[in-house]
Amino acid sequence: MKKPIWIKHAAQLVTLAQADKKPRSKEAMSELAIIEDGSVWIEDGIIQAVGTTIELEQHYKNRANEAEITDATGHLVTPGLVDPHTHVAYGGSREREFEMRLEGASYMDIMNAGGGIHATTTMTREATEDELFTQTKKRLDSFLAHGVTTVEGKSGYGLDLETELKQLRVMKRLQNEHVIDLIPTFMGAHAVPATYKGKENDYIDVIINEMLPVVAAEKLAVFNDVFCEVGVFTPEQSERILEAGKKYGLIPKIHADEIEPYQGAELAAKVGAISAEHLLKASDEGIAAMASSGTIACLLPATALYLREQAAQGRKMIDEGVAVAISTDCNPGSSPTTSMPLVMNLACISMRLTPAEALTAATYNAACAIQMEAKTGSLEVGKQGDVVLWDISNYQELQYLFGVNHVKVVWKKGVKVVG
Amino acid sequence: MKKPIWIKHAAQLVTLAQADKKPRSKEAMSELAIIEDGSVWIEDGIIQAVGTTIELEQHYKNRANEAEITDATGHLVTPGLVDPHTHVAYGGSREREFEMRLEGASYMDIMNAGGGIHATTTMTREATEDELFTQTKKRLDSFLAHGVTTVEGKSGYGLDLETELKQLRVMKRLQNEHVIDLIPTFMGAHAVPATYKGKENDYIDVIINEMLPVVAAEKLAVFNDVFCEVGVFTPEQSERILEAGKKYGLIPKIHADEIEPYQGAELAAKVGAISAEHLLKASDEGIAAMASSGTIACLLPATALYLREQAAQGRKMIDEGVAVAISTDCNPGSSPTTSMPLVMNLACISMRLTPAEALTAATYNAACAIQMEAKTGSLEVGKQGDVVLWDISNYQELQYLFGVNHVKVVWKKGVKVVG
Repeated sequence: MKKPIWIKHAAQLVTLAQADKKPRSKEAMSELAIIEDGSVWIEDGIIQAVGTTIELEQHYKNRANEAEITDATGHLVTPGLVDPHTHVAYGGSREREFEMRLEGASYMDIMNAGGGIHATTTMTREATEDELFTQTKKRLDSFLAHGVTTVEGKSGYGLDLETELKQLRVMKRLQNEHVIDLIPTFMGAHAVPATYKGKENDYIDVIINEMLPVVAAEKLAVFNDVFCEVGVFTPEQSERILEAGKKYGLIPKIHADEIEPYQGAELAAKVGAISAEHLLKASDEGIAAMASSGTIACLLPATALYLREQAAQGRKMIDEGVAVAISTDCNPGSSPTTSMPLVMNLACISMRLTPAEALTAATYNAACAIQMEAKTGSLEVGKQGDVVLWDISNYQELQYLFGVNHVKVVWKKGVKVVG
Repeated sequence: MKKPIWIKHAAQLVTLAQADKKPRSKEAMSELAIIEDGSVWIEDGIIQAVGTTIELEQHYKNRANEAEITDATGHLVTPGLVDPHTHVAYGGSREREFEMRLEGASYMDIMNAGGGIHATTTMTREATEDELFTQTKKRLDSFLAHGVTTVEGKSGYGLDLETELKQLRVMKRLQNEHVIDLIPTFMGAHAVPATYKGKENDYIDVIINEMLPVVAAEKLAVFNDVFCEVGVFTPEQSERILEAGKKYGLIPKIHADEIEPYQGAELAAKVGAISAEHLLKASDEGIAAMASSGTIACLLPATALYLREQAAQGRKMIDEGVAVAISTDCNPGSSPTTSMPLVMNLACISMRLTPAEALTAATYNAACAIQMEAKTGSLEVGKQGDVVLWDISNYQELQYLFGVNHVKVVWKKGVKVVG
């Protein structure tokens, strides 16, 4: 019988508890439901009680000796962070390409040297399932060290049936073997494979007729994502792929309006996507459509930084009523990072979110973007014991003292996994 | 008798050894002098041998059993990082002001609420020496955890004799009691105190006639720094302060051309400053003058990010022959961070330095900017055993896998202090 976990005397226990269970927008993103001198009691991996330390001392007065106690005096305690958009299951590494670009190599130089997304496709295809498992596991360990207890992961570096399935199977194995909850997304439509250049619709036929049925039959994915972008998949093609996925019960997501304005946000609202991703060039109409449809904006400010782009209009989206989530976009080309704390910092610095909004975007709203809000994303009775204790005393410092990983202890389902 | 330290089998031992002992510019910034399967032997805090593992196995074959061995197989090993520009000894914290600004407060709202630099001056004046010691020590611990083994620290939040001395004495105590080497800079000319508004020259008289003599007599500083900026100190006033410091043996540094172009880089070259800081708005003539005079450009890309400014022209400065160093600028207003790894990442991302240049800027050139290059900044026989072992395998990954603190083990003067 495992001991109950009792985290007590938190300087700020940020619960993010709210009665309304929808994704949060506008003022709701600032309501953190903070308990001072707060306590959480976790048993069998599930949160059993949340309140002031005095309340829990009263409630558990006959069981206090049973618990494994953590004294959080002077510390901030929050829900485990959620990363709702990653490409974590990729093969290889492209640091030499990063260096070449800084040494002055052109895009074509890098492509000629075997670089770019096709380099990752090749390395992912060549990796054995065990190799891909080991590489991905190392990244999940790093997520955990940064306070992230739930991660979404996409396929999309295979672009053929075999490798797409390999990516998804590796993630399924990790969902079983790693403490992190890893929520899988099928993204066969991440790029057009080199062999289908000019025959994009033929590749879409492969996705719809060959990939989706197997992914669905093996229950390898919850979501279906498409890179809707000029030169990749058109809005019409994207819609076809997403509608096909819906027939198999896969929920749509869209990489939308990242590089060019392309009506991606509008399409997300139209097809009932749970979230639209990137949105650097989203139109005013698209933002309004997302606010109306309740589509979550999943924003990726670390990617914008890495690519030296203007970040998405996070401030404006919240003000217009869109529920905003944030994510690392962890991938080998445009955001090789696992640091959700840095992403929260950048949400404030680059997108003008407040510290409270950034935390909501990285916890509750992020959980909503991957349909995990019933299990995680806030500290409420009945949810998983996914908790982070930080080496600072308040949520403002989490964003203010930037660039530093302030994680001190992490519990996943009530088990101490960091610290 | 302490055991010798033997770090062996490093995948890449980045020594940064070069025959020429000047600050490095142009191609010299890319020459990392990497040894594959490298070894370092440290004894009595000093590096005794650097070479391939085979060479050191041969050299120490009769003493191998004496050493405390670290197997660095698969890991990058570098010199300890050097942060040549911080305001680390400050009182208090301003996270609430950060939040107010993001909630829409104006500059005047914040000033009226007691915010801004004068808030830090007040909190630094009010802190006891022990309180300031404790707060500063915590920041130095964080620097160490980020691989930084040598830090420069400035006064300048006192703006009166008593508090300026308090800041410098705290730093002197930390130099004795903390493992980090903390190199002190007097910066009475960090701002004009509120009580001297419109009487700037009277305050300069105080600096020159009351502060400098005591700072020099108590040997509390090595450098003398001035904020030369429109609305703070003019180039003429700055020159007067720096020339007065020179009479006491204090070496000039200048916060130059940060907000407005103000001939600060030119002044740095003219007065023989060891370094000029910030330089976001440095003129072409100023850059050329610094290249000629050998003045080091100390660039602060995390500050530019935090303030949403365009970073300094690091790429251009290197190409024009300026020796570039980089730094956190650790301070409560414009860069509350201790992460030199993030600063290296930003040097690549925002200033287009190559991974090799960023590492040179954060080690050897940074040491030169605070006259510590004879003791640290490279792995060479006779220097201090200041070494970092990273949880990655090559120096490119250090910049490519951004936003993550990859430090695994840190030795300071041959003593393991992290890991």
